[in-house]
Amino acid sequence: MKAFCSLVLFFASLSLQAGKVVSDTIRSEILKSDVMYNVYLPDGFGQGEGRYPVVYLLHGFGQDYQAWSRDGLMRILADELIESGEACEMVIVMPNAGGSDTMREWNGYMNMPGWNYEDFFFTEFMPAVERKYRVIGDKQHRAVMGLSMGGGGCTIYCQRHPDMFSSCYAMSAWLGFSGENDYPKGSKPHLVQESMREHSAISFIENADEQTLVRLRTVRWFFDCGDDDFLLDLNVRLHQLMRDRKVKDELRVRDGQHNWEYWHQALRMALPFASRNFGRP
Amino acid sequence: MKAFCSLVLFFASLSLQAGKVVSDTIRSEILKSDVMYNVYLPDGFGQGEGRYPVVYLLHGFGQDYQAWSRDGLMRILADELIESGEACEMVIVMPNAGGSDTMREWNGYMNMPGWNYEDFFFTEFMPAVERKYRVIGDKQHRAVMGLSMGGGGCTIYCQRHPDMFSSCYAMSAWLGFSGENDYPKGSKPHLVQESMREHSAISFIENADEQTLVRLRTVRWFFDCGDDDFLLDLNVRLHQLMRDRKVKDELRVRDGQHNWEYWHQALRMALPFASRNFGRP
Amino acid sequence: MKAFCSLVLFFASLSLQAGKVVSDTIRSEILKSDVMYNVYLPDGFGQGEGRYPVVYLLHGFGQDYQAWSRDGLMRILADELIESGEACEMVIVMPNAGGSDTMREWNGYMNMPGWNYEDFFFTEFMPAVERKYRVIGDKQHRAVMGLSMGGGGCTIYCQRHPDMFSSCYAMSAWLGFSGENDYPKGSKPHLVQESMREHSAISFIENADEQTLVRLRTVRWFFDCGDDDFLLDLNVRLHQLMRDRKVKDELRVRDGQHNWEYWHQALRMALPFASRNFGRP
Amino acid sequence: MKAFCSLVLFFASLSLQAGKVVSDTIRSEILKSDVMYNVYLPDGFGQGEGRYPVVYLLHGFGQDYQAWSRDGLMRILADELIESGEACEMVIVMPNAGGSDTMREWNGYMNMPGWNYEDFFFTEFMPAVERKYRVIGDKQHRAVMGLSMGGGGCTIYCQRHPDMFSSCYAMSAWLGFSGENDYPKGSKPHLVQESMREHSAISFIENADEQTLVRLRTVRWFFDCGDDDFLLDLNVRLHQLMRDRKVKDELRVRDGQHNWEYWHQALRMALPFASRNFGRP
Repeated sequence: MKAFCSLVLFFASLSLQAGKVVSDTIRSEILKSDVMYNVYLPDGFGQGEGRYPVVYLLHGFGQDYQAWSRDGLMRILADELIESGEACEMVIVMPNAGGSDTMREWNGYMNMPGWNYEDFFFTEFMPAVERKYRVIGDKQHRAVMGLSMGGGGCTIYCQRHPDMFSSCYAMSAWLGFSGENDYPKGSKPHLVQESMREHSAISFIENADEQTLVRLRTVRWFFDCGDDDFLLDLNVRLHQLMRDRKVKDELRVRDGQHNWEYWHQALRMALPFASRNFGRP
Repeated sequence: MKAFCSLVLFFASLSLQAGKVVSDTIRSEILKSDVMYNVYLPDGFGQGEGRYPVVYLLHGFGQDYQAWSRDGLMRILADELIESGEACEMVIVMPNAGGSDTMREWNGYMNMPGWNYEDFFFTEFMPAVERKYRVIGDKQHRAVMGLSMGGGGCTIYCQRHPDMFSSCYAMSAWLGFSGENDYPKGSKPHLVQESMREHSAISFIENADEQTLVRLRTVRWFFDCGDDDFLLDLNVRLHQLMRDRKVKDELRVRDGQHNWEYWHQALRMALPFASRNFGRP
Repeated sequence: MKAFCSLVLFFASLSLQAGKVVSDTIRSEILKSDVMYNVYLPDGFGQGEGRYPVVYLLHGFGQDYQAWSRDGLMRILADELIESGEACEMVIVMPNAGGSDTMREWNGYMNMPGWNYEDFFFTEFMPAVERKYRVIGDKQHRAVMGLSMGGGGCTIYCQRHPDMFSSCYAMSAWLGFSGENDYPKGSKPHLVQESMREHSAISFIENADEQTLVRLRTVRWFFDCGDDDFLLDLNVRLHQLMRDRKVKDELRVRDGQHNWEYWHQALRMALPFASRNFGRP
Repeated sequence: MKAFCSLVLFFASLSLQAGKVVSDTIRSEILKSDVMYNVYLPDGFGQGEGRYPVVYLLHGFGQDYQAWSRDGLMRILADELIESGEACEMVIVMPNAGGSDTMREWNGYMNMPGWNYEDFFFTEFMPAVERKYRVIGDKQHRAVMGLSMGGGGCTIYCQRHPDMFSSCYAMSAWLGFSGENDYPKGSKPHLVQESMREHSAISFIENADEQTLVRLRTVRWFFDCGDDDFLLDLNVRLHQLMRDRKVKDELRVRDGQHNWEYWHQALRMALPFASRNFGRP
């Protein structure tokens, strides 16, 4: 064995083939706005004829479309999981659900007055991005995941569109709101909270009829929330409701709070979870 | 159970007590230079009379003293491990072993012509920082760890100063150099490589006499290197040599390459490792 | 490197130094019975003057004192964790809380008519075993853990005797009973269920006054229960109550059911948890 | 939430649907012997028309076909991994490669004088068992794994029959023998060691021509060996040779020795590894 290992090798190792993250924009007529998004493209993307499964990866309140690639180290993690075979090659789409880093421009994933984001997502965004980035584009090869407000977003999207996604991985998910709304009426935080009240994932399950439950059972569900997270009780409650109504899901409570350390570890599990559920009946 | 969970709670959760990272500078007479460093101070630091164990956490070639807190997410991870009890409260010191992001100013942890960093580290830096930051300051409560060039640095520091550290955790460590030096003579990379040839951790063990081995056995050693890392063979070889010479160590080969994903996971194991070896005979 | 590796080496490797599990018996005047127990003694036990921390490791309903060493593979796991330093050297005591493998003889850890096991445990068993097996014998160096009925046992023991234990690790814990008791009155299962109603860990926290809470905060608590375990809700509820009453604990919900796979993995975390809490203030 | 949880529920939970392990026998004309084997059949096996992927799971020297289900807790682990979706539904076949618990009857997986086990395995055993147990029966849905001597067995089987298996997971593998054979000539241990010399997996790679390497690249390889295992060097060396010859593999060195604790954890990774490689091109 040679003990030769040099700085030359070090710099060579940095040029290993790897996926990349590109930024893109779409014009939304529904939102009357340009919407930014990031896309992770796996190593070798576009070199052949192949089409890819797709994951929609949603950011949280107060974050933007760059959060996952900047703070969540998603590119290097996706590369590693694909290299070792724990995740399959996939396109990962990270849309913006807000505007800037000022509070007044944050909006969320649901329809609300002046901001019909859910309509935008399903009728404008998904069709366009799946055409552009060689995505397979059926339920069996589409997953959605997200953190905090995005964890609520992916859960509610799958509740209302279970025919669109094979799996849902919700991290530290904000799943509903039922208290006093202390923000000024008409302010963006006030609107966001009211939209979570209206679209509560908890209420959705409580009120689901048998026909709805049958459709929910076609999605693989995963809830992952820290034992010190202020949202823990909502996640446990949703799991209990789903279990009691016979919609199989996975629940994990790991050590941690509402932060990037937790979400980074969650993504290590979420990409393999989505991968092994791609193509399953 | 209340389903009430709001954005107010979310922002409240961001203000949980937590450790902080501060930047500081020391004037070195040996290096004829100001040397920057970061220090992680645990939550509650300085509020009592208590003194803390200390970890020196070393960056790699081409990085600087900010790398661990910026790219390695060390603060949030240290907070979490301390909160759950997996790591004890400790001060974590991250010194600079270079100058800027230009190649010509990088230098490393060993003494070399014009850059006696090891002398600086042990005679100027450690005494000053341990006075300033309420560190206990004995072998039983001092650990060193690092990545790549810093993994070599911590290993060689413990080989040559085993009476100073209770444990050593080397990540993806660059442990020696024995080939052709392709960089221009006199250039900084050339000097760094030559210093690794001169101070090879491999050679050190090969040549250690029994008296030295006895002293090495007072340190707890941990080597952690990815299966796809170009430095794997050096790490395995050092483990084999130490095992054969009856210096107990731990070896881990996990999935991964030479990147922050690997080092971030390594730090999750390294801080508990250092913690449980503090105070051990 | 030699490629020489032989069956001779294989058999040599089986004779590595290791801890051992011994079976012992104590006569109980309180129970009017001989009580069997197993003790894990770490490698080197009894060769010096040293005294050891102690863990009481409790079996579940329908099991006996041999369950942990037979089905839970505890010896090999304790050896490994001690070897790597993740757990410290300790004595592990596994008492019997029943009689045989027939339903009618199982009894549990609480006092109940004709079976004052809790009295036996604290006034006869602990003093005797700690004298015999070189145990340090103070709160700071004593922990208790257990599975299912034993998870309830260790929790309730720590609730009622918080000055006796530094930490408590409850696995898939049976923490209370509040329904109809369908077993025939006077039968052993009926008595066991009534004792869980009387000594409910849930009720204990609900009813604890501030003075009691202060004492509970001197114990480190850990609850670990599978997402598919029928006891999950009890464990989550106890965590919520403790959190709301400011008694810090850890909660983990991992993948799994009420079985040895879960408990074996739990023990991998429980022994390090107990170890790092030994000696803490 | 109800706090009602009873012994009735406990016993109900024990009757959850689950896979089972059955024992079976095959008459071998080649070995002139009856050969026992165990088969794990997943929950629901045989209720439909479906055919299953198959894993061959090999025991070590000094063990028999019951070892994995008895000491390795494979059934409960397979059930759990299938339930959570980490492993797919599969048939797991555990053949005997020896005779009894006396040394003289142990033989191994290779052909040797009087014991042409490899011939038996590929021409008698596999065809018969795959007919009987509804196995899909092609390379893409067949995997092999094993521990120690069985880790060598699965590696060498895949080296010599790469068109038969999609993946290979070798645990603490005995991969070759190149020293003095200290056992009496003609004794079974002597024969086993000589067969490992003759069929060394190390030599196989060293001597493989390019055409062979191309075929080896159609198998997914995984080597997993403890840092304190006496077989570590062989495993590292095989990884280095395969890497240098561009046959991609995975290497893991975890904490541990040559024992069931290590192999049990290995199986937690091996079944998902085999699963995600079933059906891959």
